[in-house]
Amino acid sequence: EKSESKGKNINDPYANEPKRNPILIPSSQKPFNAEPPPLLLPEKFLTPNDLFFVRNHLPVPVVDPKSYKLEIGIGDKSKSKLTLNDLKKKFKKVSTTSVVQCAGNRRSEMTKIKTVKGLNWNNAAISNAEWSGATLNDVLLASGIDLDKCSHDHINDILIAYEMNGADIPRDHGYPIRVIIPGIVGARQVKWLNRIYLSKEESTCHWQRKDYKGFNSSIDWHNVNFDTSVAIQQLPVTSAVCEPADGSEIEPGSEDVTVKGYAWSGGGRGIIRVDVSADGGKTWTTAELEPTNQNPYKTWAWTLWEATVPLPENHGGKAEIVCKAIDVSYNVQPDSVEGIWNLRGCLSNAWHRIHIKIPAE
Amino acid sequence: EKSESKGKNINDPYANEPKRNPILIPSSQKPFNAEPPPLLLPEKFLTPNDLFFVRNHLPVPVVDPKSYKLEIGIGDKSKSKLTLNDLKKKFKKVSTTSVVQCAGNRRSEMTKIKTVKGLNWNNAAISNAEWSGATLNDVLLASGIDLDKCSHDHINDILIAYEMNGADIPRDHGYPIRVIIPGIVGARQVKWLNRIYLSKEESTCHWQRKDYKGFNSSIDWHNVNFDTSVAIQQLPVTSAVCEPADGSEIEPGSEDVTVKGYAWSGGGRGIIRVDVSADGGKTWTTAELEPTNQNPYKTWAWTLWEATVPLPENHGGKAEIVCKAIDVSYNVQPDSVEGIWNLRGCLSNAWHRIHIKIPAE
Ligand SMILES: [Mo]
Ligand SMILES: [Mo]
Repeated sequence: EKSESKGKNINDPYANEPKRNPILIPSSQKPFNAEPPPLLLPEKFLTPNDLFFVRNHLPVPVVDPKSYKLEIGIGDKSKSKLTLNDLKKKFKKVSTTSVVQCAGNRRSEMTKIKTVKGLNWNNAAISNAEWSGATLNDVLLASGIDLDKCSHDHINDILIAYEMNGADIPRDHGYPIRVIIPGIVGARQVKWLNRIYLSKEESTCHWQRKDYKGFNSSIDWHNVNFDTSVAIQQLPVTSAVCEPADGSEIEPGSEDVTVKGYAWSGGGRGIIRVDVSADGGKTWTTAELEPTNQNPYKTWAWTLWEATVPLPENHGGKAEIVCKAIDVSYNVQPDSVEGIWNLRGCLSNAWHRIHIKIPAE
Repeated sequence: EKSESKGKNINDPYANEPKRNPILIPSSQKPFNAEPPPLLLPEKFLTPNDLFFVRNHLPVPVVDPKSYKLEIGIGDKSKSKLTLNDLKKKFKKVSTTSVVQCAGNRRSEMTKIKTVKGLNWNNAAISNAEWSGATLNDVLLASGIDLDKCSHDHINDILIAYEMNGADIPRDHGYPIRVIIPGIVGARQVKWLNRIYLSKEESTCHWQRKDYKGFNSSIDWHNVNFDTSVAIQQLPVTSAVCEPADGSEIEPGSEDVTVKGYAWSGGGRGIIRVDVSADGGKTWTTAELEPTNQNPYKTWAWTLWEATVPLPENHGGKAEIVCKAIDVSYNVQPDSVEGIWNLRGCLSNAWHRIHIKIPAE
C-alpha cells in the first residue's frame, strides 16, 4: 500500500496513514476508525481487505518487514526473537476463517438511550476474513514452551497471522503480524504484534484492566470500579439486519420483504437459528443459513442468513424488521437495549431492529 | 433405600418406587417428578440427595448391583462388559461438583403465556451435587478406545458416576450408575446406564431427535418439524430468585430486601455477575457471588448469590423482584418470556420475576 505522507506536515503523527477505500464510513478520522456500508457485508462470506472495518487507537505504525522481530518470553525472561522470515518459513502455514468484531459494534443503539463513551458504531464494526500464519503453539514450542497442557480449550486455534485473504495483512489490520484468536473480541487480537510474554498474572494493560468490561445499567462514571468486573474475551451471540438498509423504501406494493444479515457468537459456538420478523417481533420466520458446514463448537466464521418474510396486512406503509440469533448453547440475544445498556456501550447485542417504508403501488 | 412395594398391586409398574422425602413438590406422580421447595435451594451449595429434583420418564428400574453390567461398544460391535465392581476398583475415582438441570426448568412461566407440552416446573428443576466415579476416558481406554483426539472440548470431564454426595447414587437418580456430563442438559445425563456405544451418527433416540429441541414462538404443533432443529446439549445462562418466596410478605416497614438465588450457565461458562432489582428492572444492584473459585471456563457447579436491594420509596406495599445473570462470555438472559416461548416450554431462561408484599409498620 502507498503511504499518503507526501506533502503532509511531518509533525503530524498521522502523516503516514495508509490509503483507504473511500467507501468506508468513518467513526473517527484521527485515529482512523471506519466500518463498511452494512449493505455490503452479507454480499461476501469473506470481507474484502479494503472493506474490512478498521479499528485504530493511534496512528498506524510504519513497520519495516526486514527489521521486524517478534519476541517470545515467559515472566520477565526473553526466550527468543523471530524474524518475519522465520515466521513464514520455519513453521507450518495454517489458515483459519475467523470474525473480528469490535466490543463496541452497534454502540449507536445504546447512545440513543443515554450517552456512552466510545465510537458511535453502527452495525458493521464486524468483518470476516481468512487468516494465515503459524500457530501460536508451534511458535511457542520452538521457543521451548509447551502449551499442550494449557487449560485454554482453543489454544491450538490461535494464529500468528501474516496473511489476510491470501495477501499480506494491510497496514490498517496489523502489517506485518497480528494475532488471531478465534471467538474472542477484536481488542485482544493485537495488531503490529511485537511481543508475546506468558504470565500467570492477567496483563496490566489499560485495555485489559480498565476498559472493555461489562457493568449493569445502574453503574455510571461516578460509581464505576473497573476492578470489580471481568475483561471481555469471548463475545455473546449477535446478529444484525444489513439489507434492506434502515429507513429505505422497498418496492411499492410489496407483500413480503427479503432480509439479509450476519450472525455470530463468541467461543466458537455455532449459529443454529436466526429468527426474522417484519411486524416488530410479534411473528417470526426462520432464516436460511449459509454456510452450514462449520464445526458447531468451532464456528469461528460468521453465518450469513436470508429470509423472505411476509409483511403485515395492514402495514400502513411501514414496517419494523427485527432479527435475533440463537447459538448452539441456545444462548439468545436480549430483547431490548435498555437491559444491557452499559457506560462504555460495549456488548450491544439486543434484537436488531430497522424500519422500512412500503409505498403504495 | 427401602422399596414401598409391600402390599401394593403387583401389576402396577410403579409398585417398586423408592421412598421419597415428602417435602418434595411433585409435578407428576407416575412417573414421579418433583422439585424441592425453592427456598431451600440457595441454603446449601451441595443439594442433599433427598432434596435433589427428580425427573423420571418411567417407573424407576430395580437394578441388582451384583448382576449389573455396563456394555461398551463401537458401531454395532460390543467391546467389553464391566461390572459395578470393575467400575469401582479398576479405575481412578474422580469427583466433580456439577449441576443437573431439566430442559424444562421454569416451564410454568411459559405456560402462563400460552399452553406448552411438558411438566409444569417452577424454578427448582435444578440441583447441584458432588458426583464420583470413573472417567469416561479411562473406561473407554480400558476397552481399547482412545478419545484423546476427540473434538469434544470437555471429554475428559465426563464421569461414569456411582456416588452422589459421597453416598451410593439413590435409585431416583440412577442407581447404580449414571453418566455425568458437566455443562449439559439433564436429559443427556442418562441414569441406570446400561450401554455406551460410540457412533458417527447422532443417537436416533426419541429424546435426542424428536424432543428437547428449540423452535421460535411462531412454530406450533401443526407446523413443527423436529428434523429442522438442533438437540439441546449445552444450556444457556440462567438464574432465579429463591428467597423471598413468590407472593410472600416481608417484614413490615422494610426499606430493603435481601434476595437469594442461584445462577448457572451451560458449557462450563462461569457466572461473572448477577443483577438484582426491586423495582421491576428499572435499577439494579450487583449481587455477592459464592463460590468464586471455580475455573471460569469449567464452572460445572452453580453460583449462589445474595443481594440486599433498596425498595422503591413509594412502593405502595408491594414490589417486583427481578434477577438476571451474565456468564463469562457475556451472554445474558433475555428480558421476556414472550421472545423465547416455544411449544415444548424448554429453555425458559428469561429474567426471573417474583412479587412480594411489604406491609406498613
Ligand atoms: Mo474494539
Ligand atoms: Mo428434562
